[in-house]
Amino acid sequence: MLTYSFPSDMHISMYEYLYQCIKKDIIELKLNPHEKLPSKRAFAKNQNVSLITVENAYNQLLIEGYIYAIEKKGYFVSEIQYPPTATQKKVQLPQEKEHPFIIDLKTNSVSPTHFPFSTWSKLTRQVLSSQEPSLLARPPQQGCLSLREAISKHLYAFSGMNVSPQQIIIGAGTEYLYNLVIQLLGRHLIYALEDPGHRSISKVYQLNDITYQYIPLDQNGLSISELTKSKAQVVHISPAHHYPTGITMPIKRRLDILKWANDQQHYIIEDDYDSEFRLRGKPISTLYQIDQNERVIYMNTFSKTLAPSFRISYMVLPPHLVQCFQEKLHFYACSVSSFEQIILAYFMQQGYFEKHINRMRNSYKLIRDEFLYQLNQSSIAKQIEITEENAGLHFLLHYQSHYHDNDIIKKASQIGLHISTLSQFYEHPYDSHTFVINYSGLSLQQIPIAVKLLNQLLNHNEMN
Amino acid sequence: MLTYSFPSDMHISMYEYLYQCIKKDIIELKLNPHEKLPSKRAFAKNQNVSLITVENAYNQLLIEGYIYAIEKKGYFVSEIQYPPTATQKKVQLPQEKEHPFIIDLKTNSVSPTHFPFSTWSKLTRQVLSSQEPSLLARPPQQGCLSLREAISKHLYAFSGMNVSPQQIIIGAGTEYLYNLVIQLLGRHLIYALEDPGHRSISKVYQLNDITYQYIPLDQNGLSISELTKSKAQVVHISPAHHYPTGITMPIKRRLDILKWANDQQHYIIEDDYDSEFRLRGKPISTLYQIDQNERVIYMNTFSKTLAPSFRISYMVLPPHLVQCFQEKLHFYACSVSSFEQIILAYFMQQGYFEKHINRMRNSYKLIRDEFLYQLNQSSIAKQIEITEENAGLHFLLHYQSHYHDNDIIKKASQIGLHISTLSQFYEHPYDSHTFVINYSGLSLQQIPIAVKLLNQLLNHNEMN
Repeated sequence: MLTYSFPSDMHISMYEYLYQCIKKDIIELKLNPHEKLPSKRAFAKNQNVSLITVENAYNQLLIEGYIYAIEKKGYFVSEIQYPPTATQKKVQLPQEKEHPFIIDLKTNSVSPTHFPFSTWSKLTRQVLSSQEPSLLARPPQQGCLSLREAISKHLYAFSGMNVSPQQIIIGAGTEYLYNLVIQLLGRHLIYALEDPGHRSISKVYQLNDITYQYIPLDQNGLSISELTKSKAQVVHISPAHHYPTGITMPIKRRLDILKWANDQQHYIIEDDYDSEFRLRGKPISTLYQIDQNERVIYMNTFSKTLAPSFRISYMVLPPHLVQCFQEKLHFYACSVSSFEQIILAYFMQQGYFEKHINRMRNSYKLIRDEFLYQLNQSSIAKQIEITEENAGLHFLLHYQSHYHDNDIIKKASQIGLHISTLSQFYEHPYDSHTFVINYSGLSLQQIPIAVKLLNQLLNHNEMN
Repeated sequence: MLTYSFPSDMHISMYEYLYQCIKKDIIELKLNPHEKLPSKRAFAKNQNVSLITVENAYNQLLIEGYIYAIEKKGYFVSEIQYPPTATQKKVQLPQEKEHPFIIDLKTNSVSPTHFPFSTWSKLTRQVLSSQEPSLLARPPQQGCLSLREAISKHLYAFSGMNVSPQQIIIGAGTEYLYNLVIQLLGRHLIYALEDPGHRSISKVYQLNDITYQYIPLDQNGLSISELTKSKAQVVHISPAHHYPTGITMPIKRRLDILKWANDQQHYIIEDDYDSEFRLRGKPISTLYQIDQNERVIYMNTFSKTLAPSFRISYMVLPPHLVQCFQEKLHFYACSVSSFEQIILAYFMQQGYFEKHINRMRNSYKLIRDEFLYQLNQSSIAKQIEITEENAGLHFLLHYQSHYHDNDIIKKASQIGLHISTLSQFYEHPYDSHTFVINYSGLSLQQIPIAVKLLNQLLNHNEMN
C-alpha cells in the first residue's frame, strides 16, 4: 500500500503533507491515471494517522481535481498530462531607481515641513472613531457626497463657480480622469493638445488609440486659427496657467475658444491644476464659468494643494454629460478610498483647507522671492532672465549658452541637479536655453545649494 | 471721469470691487473698445482710494485681457465680443439614490463590527508621526515598495507564490487594473470572458472598444473546446472560485488552459478575488504558480479582505511584461495614495492582516452556518437547495417557482430585500430560479430578518 514517511521537522499540517506527497506522485506519474487509491480507513491505519487527516487530504485533491471519486467504489487518480518542468527563463528585472539628486527642480513635490500632519492625524482619528458603515461600503460611484459638497463650496468661495455636487466626479488622479473622459466622449473623436505641454497627456491618448493633434501656442495661449484649421473635436487646455510657459489666456482668446466649441458642439477640457497658487492678483475666471452652452469639462486636483502622494482629483461635468456619465460609466467603482475622501471632506468643512492653501501660498511666495533674490545676487545674474514668476509653482529661467539643451541636462545630472528644459515640453525639441524651475519642493535651507548648483552648471558651461 | 460708488456693506476688497465694476462695463459695452481708461493716479484721486488699489484692479484686468497697456500712453479697453447671455438650460439632474433595503444580499460589503478601526487608527498615527518625505512624494509608479514587499511575503506565506516585489503593480481597484492591462497588451487583441460572469468586466472591454467573446462554462469551469474554437488571444478567468457559480477549476482544466496559452503565446488574466476566504481546505494552487511560460497575469484585491471602500488592488506580471509595463506605462502615477499604501504595509508587516483574515474567515463561517441552519429550520426548507457554500463569500440558493427571475427580483425589492439571481450574470438571461447570496455584509442579528424576508418572498410567490 501507498506509504509516506513523515519528517520529524514538519512545519505544515499532516493532512497538507499527505496531500502534497500524493499530488507529487500523481504529477510525476508514480501513481498512474485511473489507479485506485487506498480506502481512507485503510490508509489512515497504514500511515498511523487519524481518519480526518486522510479525509482532508483526499478532499483537497478532489477539489483541485487530482483525483476523482466513484460512489461506493472509492478514489481514483485523474488523468493529467502535467507538462515537463521547463527551465524558467530568468529575466533580470531592472533594479528600482534611486534618485541620487542633491536638488530636484523638476519634480513637483511638497516639503514635509509644510504638511499639516497633526491635523490630518486628528481628523483621521475622528473619522475612524465614528465607525460609520459608509466608511466600509463601496463609495458612491461619483465619490462620497460629503467630499463633493465640500468641493462645490470651495469652488464657489474660491472662484465663484456655481457647481452642484451632482456634477462632480472624484477620481484617483487627473490621468485617471482623462481615461474616464475618453470613455465618456468616445474614442472616435479627435483631440487637440497644447504644444508645448505635458507630454504625459499625449501618452494617455496614444495608449487609448486616439487621434490627436498638437496645436501651437502664441503669446495668448493656444492658437485659435490653428485649432480651427485642425479636425479636433475636443481640446485639452490649461488657460489659467499654462504649463510650462506660464501663459494666462486672456478673455478674448477664452471667448474665441468657447465660440469654437459652441459653433460645432465641440468640447473643452479645462485643466485648472494649480490656480490656487496664483501669487499675485485674484484667481482668473475659469472657462467653465464663462461657458453658457455646457461645452466645458473642468478638472482640478489635490496633488498641488495637499501633496502629490494624494491621488485625489475631480472633474465637473456639464449637466448633459452627467446624465451620459451615469448611463455609460455607472458600473465603475469610485477609484478613491472612502477613508481619504471623508477625511478630506472634514479637512475642507472645518476650514483647514483654506488656511492650508493660504499658508502654502505665502510659503511659496517666500521661497520664490528668496530664490530669485539669491539668483540675482549670484555671479550668473547677468547671464539669466526670469519670466512667468507670478502664477503657479514654477518659473522660467532663460540663460545664455551655446550648449544643447540635452547636454546641459546631462551636466546638471552629473552635479546632482534634477532639472528640465522648456524644449522637453515641445513636440519637436529644439534648444530653448530655458529651464523650467519647479520650486515647490524646496525648503529655504536648500535655496543656497540650488543657486550654487545652477551657478556651477552655467559657469561651468561657459568655461568649457 | 469714470466713477464708481463703493457700497457700505462690501464684503470683498476695494480693488476687487473696482475690477468687477470695470469688467462689467467692458462686457456690457458701457466702455467702448479701445477707449482710454483714466490714468491710475487720476482715477485713484477721483475715487478717493489708494494708488495701489487702482493698480491691482488694472493689473487683474490686464492679466485677464480685458484691457491692454501702451507704454507711455496708458490703459485701453480691449475689443471683446462677449456673447449675449443665453438662458442656461436647466437640466434636472437625477437625485442620488438612497438604498432603502432592509437586507442587502446583493452587494459585497463588510459589517463595521468586523473592521479593526482602532488598529488602523493607531497605525495611521504611527505612519503620520514619522513625517517621512516619502509620505508626500508622488508614489513610485508600481506602488510603494514597502507595500509590494508585504504583498510578496503574503503571497508566499498564503499560497506559496514566488513573486518579486518588482513584478507587482498596485492600482486603485481591479477595474482600474483591467484598463491598465488593456493598455499594456494592446487594444487589437481579442478577449474571452466567462459566461456567466461579472457583467462589469465586459463593460470595461466595451468602453475600450475591444472585441470580446463570451465562453460558456461547463461543470469544470471555462470550456476549453469553446475557448479553442474562439479567436480569443487573452482569457479572463477566476479559476479558484468562479463568480457566481462557485466552480473551482480542477487541475486538468488548468493545465489545458495553460497549454492553450502557451501553444499560441496567448495570455491568461487570473482573477483571484476572494481566495483568502476558502472556508474549507487549503488555498488552491494558482494558475500563476503552475505556469512555466510567463503566460499568466495574476490579480487580487483588498476589497474583500479589508472592505470595499478600500480601492487597493494589485496584479503580478510575468517578468517580460514587467519590462513592457515599464517601457509603455511608466509615466502613469500610481493611482493609490501613499498614506494608505504605507499604512496597509504596516498592517501587513506587523501581522495584523493575517490575524484579520483568520478572524474574518471564522466570522464568515459562523454567519454562513447560522444562515444555512435558520434557512433549514424555516418553512421554505423543502423548497430550496443550497450549493457552492464552501468557497468565498457567497452561495447559491435554488428555489422552486413558476415565476420569472425578473419578477421575483421586483417582488424582493418591494419587501426591502436586495438580491440577485444567477441569470443576471449570463449573456442571455433565462429563468435560473437561483439566488446568488452574498452574506459578507450580514451581522448575526440580521440573519433572522433575512430568513424571514426570503420566506415571505418564496411563500408569497407560491401563494399568488
